[in-house]
Amino acid sequence: MAKLESYDRTLSYSYAPGLFPATECLNAIPERCHRLLISSKIRMSDPVNALIEKAESLHVRVETADRVLERLSKKENCFAAVVYEKAEGRLDPAGAHIVLHEPSDTGNVGTIIRTALGMGYTNIAIIRPAVDTDDPRVVRASMGACFSVNIAYFDTFESYMEQYADHQLYLFMLKGSEMLNEVTGKVQRPLSLVFGNEARGLPDAFAEYGIPVRIPHSNRIDSLNLAIAAGIGMYALAQQNVGQGEK
Amino acid sequence: MAKLESYDRTLSYSYAPGLFPATECLNAIPERCHRLLISSKIRMSDPVNALIEKAESLHVRVETADRVLERLSKKENCFAAVVYEKAEGRLDPAGAHIVLHEPSDTGNVGTIIRTALGMGYTNIAIIRPAVDTDDPRVVRASMGACFSVNIAYFDTFESYMEQYADHQLYLFMLKGSEMLNEVTGKVQRPLSLVFGNEARGLPDAFAEYGIPVRIPHSNRIDSLNLAIAAGIGMYALAQQNVGQGEK
Repeated sequence: MAKLESYDRTLSYSYAPGLFPATECLNAIPERCHRLLISSKIRMSDPVNALIEKAESLHVRVETADRVLERLSKKENCFAAVVYEKAEGRLDPAGAHIVLHEPSDTGNVGTIIRTALGMGYTNIAIIRPAVDTDDPRVVRASMGACFSVNIAYFDTFESYMEQYADHQLYLFMLKGSEMLNEVTGKVQRPLSLVFGNEARGLPDAFAEYGIPVRIPHSNRIDSLNLAIAAGIGMYALAQQNVGQGEK
Repeated sequence: MAKLESYDRTLSYSYAPGLFPATECLNAIPERCHRLLISSKIRMSDPVNALIEKAESLHVRVETADRVLERLSKKENCFAAVVYEKAEGRLDPAGAHIVLHEPSDTGNVGTIIRTALGMGYTNIAIIRPAVDTDDPRVVRASMGACFSVNIAYFDTFESYMEQYADHQLYLFMLKGSEMLNEVTGKVQRPLSLVFGNEARGLPDAFAEYGIPVRIPHSNRIDSLNLAIAAGIGMYALAQQNVGQGEK
């Protein structure tokens, strides 16, 4: 592998920055991990030792790379990162899907992926133009959950719909005619939960594609934050996905 | 008023940065608004004109203040801000409360305040040490919702409990013995929804103070993000707060 570059979506590899995301990367996609980068300033601790041992057991090269790590995190300190090979995923045609239409905020997308994995949704469709889910900021915000879900990209919402025509779409819209708490009990499967862009939401015309759902909130706020709306929607429609007994 | 300083929690005033938060500030607490700051680079638009007209109608001085605005927002451009007088709020003893125990992330706290207002919770207790809710980053993340809720600070959780002894506490904990979906139907009022610090959660000992609640999620993630957990908790226990008919 050549000299490591600043992340750009055209690169074939990306970085999983931070102790927890780096560990998740090694655990979930060991065959795609190239190197573990360590800062010379890292303080040794049990999780750090476990990370290094894990990399060594997988024959992933461990190296000191202060400049690459400094460049990765402008604000927060980053003392470890895994360099991994990117790969596009495939959605399970029988599974529940989360569909993000033109999401633009890396933090929101990472948080949504983390919530999705926790709520039992492991298939995520992204409709372009959109944030790149291999962006290290997304990886970090997802706490490495991005390595345990299938993520696929689509150029248009219509191409997603054609491919998964049997999915019942639940379209989260401010003007949705169905209240979330009322659709909860009568969910049709396989289902797709569809969320729009942070500023624009979903186009009004999408209401015809399935069940337009509204999360009840007062008129004292303009809208809920995207990641919050997605979290509430996933929770409300996921109680069958995540068993209470499951730990 | 003297020269405007960089925000610090010891100042008696703060800033509501951004068009939407600034407008909310003028609408919600006009009597505490000192000035509207405008960037010389602002592009005139209907919302900008409306903001300036609103300030003028309230006799709030409008002035160009490029340097103060640049200092306010390191990353994003900020073209308008209201300077307002800080004031500690008082909680409604009969209302539902959101209690944040030692929250440390400005974005999370702002997002939680915005969600709370949307879900009909207008009383927020903050247990110190904690983020300062007048921090401009909190104000911005709340989209100005912080001006429409009552926020009160407490030095210890015990002092909050003593003052609101009749509140039924719902303590959100990873080890909570009651599943959220099971407590939803039998909520006791007045209630307090209590959420812990981002990294540490609530101390285990708090389980004795009320009903320890768990949000069901799989073991494939460590925990939910704090703002997401709070959003789900508020939604699940708030369906009586926000009428469906209310718009």
